[in-house]
Amino acid sequence: MGAHDLDASTDAGTGGRVASDHPGVIDLFAVLAYGEISAFYRLAEDAQMAPDLRGKVAFASMAAAEMDHFETLETALTERGHEIFAVMDPFVRALDNYHASTTPSTWLESLVKAYVGDGIAADFYREIGHSLPADVAEIVEDVLSQTGHSEFVVLEVKAAVEASTRAKDRLMLWGRRLLGEAITQAQFVLAQREDLTDLVISASGDLNGVVALFDGMQAKHAERMAVLGLV
Amino acid sequence: MGAHDLDASTDAGTGGRVASDHPGVIDLFAVLAYGEISAFYRLAEDAQMAPDLRGKVAFASMAAAEMDHFETLETALTERGHEIFAVMDPFVRALDNYHASTTPSTWLESLVKAYVGDGIAADFYREIGHSLPADVAEIVEDVLSQTGHSEFVVLEVKAAVEASTRAKDRLMLWGRRLLGEAITQAQFVLAQREDLTDLVISASGDLNGVVALFDGMQAKHAERMAVLGLV
Repeated sequence: MGAHDLDASTDAGTGGRVASDHPGVIDLFAVLAYGEISAFYRLAEDAQMAPDLRGKVAFASMAAAEMDHFETLETALTERGHEIFAVMDPFVRALDNYHASTTPSTWLESLVKAYVGDGIAADFYREIGHSLPADVAEIVEDVLSQTGHSEFVVLEVKAAVEASTRAKDRLMLWGRRLLGEAITQAQFVLAQREDLTDLVISASGDLNGVVALFDGMQAKHAERMAVLGLV
Repeated sequence: MGAHDLDASTDAGTGGRVASDHPGVIDLFAVLAYGEISAFYRLAEDAQMAPDLRGKVAFASMAAAEMDHFETLETALTERGHEIFAVMDPFVRALDNYHASTTPSTWLESLVKAYVGDGIAADFYREIGHSLPADVAEIVEDVLSQTGHSEFVVLEVKAAVEASTRAKDRLMLWGRRLLGEAITQAQFVLAQREDLTDLVISASGDLNGVVALFDGMQAKHAERMAVLGLV
């Protein structure tokens, strides 16, 4: 990217200001929308590993919340004159790759992925959202809202890692892998989508802001792992 | 059921009246609730056969609507002092059996099942719901409400059966099988759950009413098949 020498008169890290009609907004809504669909089907598939009906219901509820968010984004895109299937298309590969490279092999890995993976994505989008015009920021915040089922995940994972050091060690590595794969795919998307990259840079203030954004994501990931007892 | 000679002083078919605290109401909510969960996971699995993203999104939206309904039933059961997982348990086997015996082998069969199978269940519950106290009837009606995605199914299936007599013949048999399996499992449940059976008989007026109820379901099934071009 080699643009560190750009004038950074805005306060890097607290973010810049982005016009409402920035073309990257459509990309942002589109990647969020496909993210909801792919998360829906990942949760539905991972729920097959649930040891009981309670786990299946918790995952089904989380998956259903993804579809509420999808509908919000569909409305937002339609209002802006875009067809959701057309604009989602460029993001299918990266998100499918993320899920394919982080397919859980146990129920505990599924739980950690549902909590930590969603959190990583939410941090990224939320940081960008802060700098967007109010109407856009509101939509982003709305679709990132928690579903209230994360408490279930926290209790299950904490109990498991307290009971077994081996489980804890495995899940610590798993969490690290989730973050790594998420960043890899985010970079892949940004390298391909100029409008979105420009939006992220504008929202972050400048390239230093983008670096700060990724650093902030790492810090928040560590906090989230700690909540699960993974420290 | 050799009880056709029972006195049918109430107006069979239009239904009787049931007290709000009839123990069968809990069974009714419970079987509806597990029905939502099993439909959710069936739709999520069947969506793997979707030829494109549009089909996957349509099924995900239908599945998400099932979970909205599940939450309504969970609230209703909690308010009545029942734990949803405990009361759902007796219905797991029959509903799992229904889905296991009607696993679609093509995307078209999935579409017909989503439309026709849901319709059969809705007819049954709606007929009973009519005779229930207002607070119960409202919940039943609420969780049977359509999601607006059935239009998608109708268009896809109609186009396919107009294009191919072979597809039409196969789907006609498939629809007949869905009805047969649904009735088999409904009878299995009623044979095991006295409270629910008593509720159904009370709601139908008497046993003649129950016979009329099943006849009515068959007629409505035929109408629904006709909407799909399956006549």
